[in-house]
Amino acid sequence: MTTVPLRQTASIVMALALSLLVAGCAGTDPLPSWNDGPARQRIVRFVEEVTNPNSPSHVPPAERIAVFDNDGTLWAEQPMYAQLAFALDRVKALAPQHPEWKTSQPFKAVLEGDTGSLVAGGMKGLMELIMATHAGMTTEEFERIVEDWLAAAKHPRFKRPYTECVYQPMLEVLAYLRANGFKTFIVSGGGVEFMRPWAETVYGIPPERVIGSSIKTKFEMRQGEPVLVRLPELFFFDDKEAKPVAIQKFIGRRPIAAFGNSDGDLQMLQWTTAGKGKRLGVIVHHTDAGREYAYDRKSKVGHLDKALDAAQAAGWIVVSMKNDWKTVFGE
Amino acid sequence: MTTVPLRQTASIVMALALSLLVAGCAGTDPLPSWNDGPARQRIVRFVEEVTNPNSPSHVPPAERIAVFDNDGTLWAEQPMYAQLAFALDRVKALAPQHPEWKTSQPFKAVLEGDTGSLVAGGMKGLMELIMATHAGMTTEEFERIVEDWLAAAKHPRFKRPYTECVYQPMLEVLAYLRANGFKTFIVSGGGVEFMRPWAETVYGIPPERVIGSSIKTKFEMRQGEPVLVRLPELFFFDDKEAKPVAIQKFIGRRPIAAFGNSDGDLQMLQWTTAGKGKRLGVIVHHTDAGREYAYDRKSKVGHLDKALDAAQAAGWIVVSMKNDWKTVFGE
Repeated sequence: MTTVPLRQTASIVMALALSLLVAGCAGTDPLPSWNDGPARQRIVRFVEEVTNPNSPSHVPPAERIAVFDNDGTLWAEQPMYAQLAFALDRVKALAPQHPEWKTSQPFKAVLEGDTGSLVAGGMKGLMELIMATHAGMTTEEFERIVEDWLAAAKHPRFKRPYTECVYQPMLEVLAYLRANGFKTFIVSGGGVEFMRPWAETVYGIPPERVIGSSIKTKFEMRQGEPVLVRLPELFFFDDKEAKPVAIQKFIGRRPIAAFGNSDGDLQMLQWTTAGKGKRLGVIVHHTDAGREYAYDRKSKVGHLDKALDAAQAAGWIVVSMKNDWKTVFGE
Repeated sequence: MTTVPLRQTASIVMALALSLLVAGCAGTDPLPSWNDGPARQRIVRFVEEVTNPNSPSHVPPAERIAVFDNDGTLWAEQPMYAQLAFALDRVKALAPQHPEWKTSQPFKAVLEGDTGSLVAGGMKGLMELIMATHAGMTTEEFERIVEDWLAAAKHPRFKRPYTECVYQPMLEVLAYLRANGFKTFIVSGGGVEFMRPWAETVYGIPPERVIGSSIKTKFEMRQGEPVLVRLPELFFFDDKEAKPVAIQKFIGRRPIAAFGNSDGDLQMLQWTTAGKGKRLGVIVHHTDAGREYAYDRKSKVGHLDKALDAAQAAGWIVVSMKNDWKTVFGE
């Protein structure tokens, strides 16, 4: 991985500043972007109970694991996943080296902006796009490609970098939990190497606490230097039932808090909240067409149906973006 | 995962005590079990340089990743891997429920103590033993099986629990690095769920920093409760070329220090020390037949041949257990 001392230093300074901000000032509101409703109150009550050494619900710091979905939970996922926008842009950028793409699907559809054919190609077409744009280079080369894209790309509606389309209230939750001794992890269906280059700067979450989907990589010596080459073959698709599986594989300890926003997070929430003792399950419900988007049961992206029913039955917190958040993206 | 507050609390108290011991007493030797030779001096010099904010070799804490092989690097691996001893004991314990094992290999060989046939069965036979003893239960059930076995089993030569056959000088290195802001990880060919139940208590390394081989698991609802069931199918074999692959998958950042003892660690050491800036590569060389074992190029367990040559060429530290360590297991 490329060493980027400046970025890292900035990240550490930011993390420190956030911690001081949250932990240092007794009486300061740790969640200023949240309205004082039941969602906010229940999150705060949970944190106070598990951190209170005199409470029967006390949890030692080593076990204070909190997991967060990324797309739709920490940043915007509409009108399409940022990683899909990345893949489409990469197809366009790489097209001159692939004249055959002009006549073969799903690449032809991307180059012609033919969304209909793209959708018709389904998951198979999508995976072809991912493999063609995410594999064939070393891990360090891919990291630079992602960083360069993120520095230039803008969200189509909000006209700002994707890394500024993150939810301010959720940044506060992340910092609040860490200030209370929690270890915060991302457990996302998105590609792990697509998130790691910016998760530390943007979320304060270091690479080793980012879990996601991945393709296979291969160790090779190139001119005496070891490299890891990304192969066009799926290694792990981190969605639905695979999320608790990934939590066990990567963390090895059941979380006590889980935050998601779609049916892809259902099993992660079930696994987390079925553990003994106090548990926190939270679903971010996109109810805010004005400031962000409003979607749930009928949406293809961020489909939220079974998990919304399960939330009611299990007593998980359903956060209404519109009612519970004072701001969505901050200023 | 079962919550074991007592064990966790003990672990935290121990970790704190160790940190205080190492970090708190200025002038106190952080590596008291090491003789004052070149190996010790080079380790200390490396740590001082990367942690000195005024040094050109300074590394910010977030990037201070140190990886350790387990078998033969942190604990004894002779006369056989502890996990193999576990598998053999489990075959014996489960035999009454498997009458067919009396007549079918490799189980027959285990039950009859027929080492010749066992060795003849090679890797294939070994994998059969592993799958028969490591799969078919939930992750929580397996954790208890490992804990129960460890509480009762004794090392055949040292006549003490395997978790007391850990190298005192290496425990000091782990604590010394953590007291200097390092994140310490295990990257082992051993089964990750075989190590996690005790790695936090014994090494101060929490489950999320233990990386190893694993079999597949499956999420299931059993009587309304979610469980993860262990399947008799390999997911990831964390050895040789796969170690840097695992480091990238699980940590996502290149380590600056790596400790190993066999050819299985060669690529992990290459990957670590090929990074930019100051790097530390260390090989524990088993040279001490009196206090532990002496083996390298001709040994089947802990085979050390190519990595020993590479160490000389690359300038990695080769620790002589006999000459560099005042004690092996402590008192």
